[in-house]
Amino acid sequence: MTTLVEVPRGLAGVVVTDTEIGDVRGEEGFYHYRQYSAVDLAQQCSFEDVWYLMFNGHLPSPEQRRAFKEQVTPLRRLSPQLAALLPSLANAKPLDGLRTALSFAAADRGMRPLLDTDEEERTSDVLFVCALVPTILTALYRLRAGDEPVAPRDDLSHAANYLYMLTGEEPSIEHTAAIEKYLISTIDHGFNNSTFTARVIASTGADVGACLVGAIGALSGPLHGGAPSRALAALEEIGTPDNIDGWVRSRVEGGERIMGFGHAVYRTDDPRSLMLRDVATSLGGDLVEFAKQVEHKVVDILAELKPGRKLYTNVEFYAGVVMEQCGVPRDMFTPTFSASRMVGWSANVLEQARDSKIIRPRARYTGPEAPQPVVVSD
Amino acid sequence: MTTLVEVPRGLAGVVVTDTEIGDVRGEEGFYHYRQYSAVDLAQQCSFEDVWYLMFNGHLPSPEQRRAFKEQVTPLRRLSPQLAALLPSLANAKPLDGLRTALSFAAADRGMRPLLDTDEEERTSDVLFVCALVPTILTALYRLRAGDEPVAPRDDLSHAANYLYMLTGEEPSIEHTAAIEKYLISTIDHGFNNSTFTARVIASTGADVGACLVGAIGALSGPLHGGAPSRALAALEEIGTPDNIDGWVRSRVEGGERIMGFGHAVYRTDDPRSLMLRDVATSLGGDLVEFAKQVEHKVVDILAELKPGRKLYTNVEFYAGVVMEQCGVPRDMFTPTFSASRMVGWSANVLEQARDSKIIRPRARYTGPEAPQPVVVSD
Repeated sequence: MTTLVEVPRGLAGVVVTDTEIGDVRGEEGFYHYRQYSAVDLAQQCSFEDVWYLMFNGHLPSPEQRRAFKEQVTPLRRLSPQLAALLPSLANAKPLDGLRTALSFAAADRGMRPLLDTDEEERTSDVLFVCALVPTILTALYRLRAGDEPVAPRDDLSHAANYLYMLTGEEPSIEHTAAIEKYLISTIDHGFNNSTFTARVIASTGADVGACLVGAIGALSGPLHGGAPSRALAALEEIGTPDNIDGWVRSRVEGGERIMGFGHAVYRTDDPRSLMLRDVATSLGGDLVEFAKQVEHKVVDILAELKPGRKLYTNVEFYAGVVMEQCGVPRDMFTPTFSASRMVGWSANVLEQARDSKIIRPRARYTGPEAPQPVVVSD
Repeated sequence: MTTLVEVPRGLAGVVVTDTEIGDVRGEEGFYHYRQYSAVDLAQQCSFEDVWYLMFNGHLPSPEQRRAFKEQVTPLRRLSPQLAALLPSLANAKPLDGLRTALSFAAADRGMRPLLDTDEEERTSDVLFVCALVPTILTALYRLRAGDEPVAPRDDLSHAANYLYMLTGEEPSIEHTAAIEKYLISTIDHGFNNSTFTARVIASTGADVGACLVGAIGALSGPLHGGAPSRALAALEEIGTPDNIDGWVRSRVEGGERIMGFGHAVYRTDDPRSLMLRDVATSLGGDLVEFAKQVEHKVVDILAELKPGRKLYTNVEFYAGVVMEQCGVPRDMFTPTFSASRMVGWSANVLEQARDSKIIRPRARYTGPEAPQPVVVSD
């Protein structure tokens, strides 16, 4: 008989697997993808290079980069079947629409179970999904707004093409660089709930579509996907610098969370937040200056009212500012996040597929004693 | 800093939650839903009564039974939007089609996150899904076969209506009773992978659709959903009683698994198998007699060749026989299973929704040391 093992609620701190994909060192304020600092990668690499790294474990050579680009660029296009489906999803919440469209695309492609595939076939399936998701998301956004979807352009980078499909206009170099850094910095971040979901499903040998559709569902949960737009909404609610103090104190004293501050893992500055603050600063504008004022004030007040808690801005705070500055609409903040995280989930699915053990924990029955006699009332 | 906890691979034996929904006692060959033996329920109750039990913790009074039937029966019907989608999914694998159709239906209904709902709204959402799934599955089956879907009939029970929508003909009392026992006996079975998937997603506060779509994906994995049709295919391959011995020995000696035998938890007869053998016997026919001959022979040979392993038939073996006898086509075996398991998943989602703690485990990084300097080749 299997020995039962007791663990903390929510599996907090429970090491469920080994991984070579990356890690978060919360005490140090450091996180990495493979052997590189994620912030270094965001500052020096293209999204495509980091995507290649996540799947292959090393950065591409020029030749590998060219081949990778040739492989993924044509995968951006919607099939006629998928294009025909999207209008019926335009009124759904963005992540629900993505979940459905991706489930359709995977089924339509006839993806085979991970258990029956080799590394090449699986990689082909995850590349298909990661390349397609930005096109699905932006098409749904435009249909929701009553506009025609914009077809992807092969000559644009992944990041530039995303902004192009969203707005219909070729983005500036500055906006492209800013959104590319945001996308790279959110590809992966330790063993979060949606990553775990993807791996639990992958452990059954199900296909790539099943794993990633499940992960999207997990990300759609308010306790996980968060809402970068909430931090922005808070900035607007505060409005002017002289309101900061009163607004923050009344919330903290009322026991409310301040959106954009505090993280489950970091006990110091969130490295994503620091980088995105620099990105926001380089873009400039009143919003950034005000955001920085709010940040300083909130950190001071939190240190005063919640001493020892070490609460700093998290990724949501400046992510919202950067996306707003780049013209990403607020209801596309979390969907944009899902487009980059898709690469992290995919790397995790590829890794889990090399492990043959199904994930199957136990539960403790705490209901009334069984069996009791069945009495059916007629 | 969170203390890290080491656990067995695949979370084997790791107690991740308390539950009042049911349990499996593998050593005893016993499993139960709430406070009742699942086999007793299958033998004495309607599917609807057990469904009610799973959600409410007690069997219904006559008044509650009537109200429940009035609530769920109208939910069987396809919306025009969903009916319009299904033909585009007819060529997908059945569970991939179900995953997509259910994702669509949940999005189209505008389900709200569990975190924002009360018990009544959540229950309404899971009832909607559980009532709708048989209609989706049978419509997709008929479209795949080039037939028109058959609309549900309000005057038929859940089980009878399922067979009716599948075949277009009102089923016999015997077939209805047999398939009803099968459906009841597979509603839940401990903390399996798909149930866990549904709960991991539910712990983010995501909506019912996200949780159940994820669970379908998990069930589509060959290591989980299994294939009741494989056991039947083995019976056909053996063909005649005098082939049994040679067929089984060559497989066991070649290190192959015998489909339909052995279970992760049971170390004695699988109680589902025993009950379904009785159901199959009452239906009669050559297939049942041959299946019993094969069972006896296989159990004997396994006991001889793998002493101490305690390998008996599992639910797949006689489930396949019963479904075949009731006219369920083989590619609908696992989908039929998903229709009953949907009720078990739903009960688990409702229970998880009462727990506010997100499930977020950890992984151990085992890759090359980080950070290493980023060198981009141009």
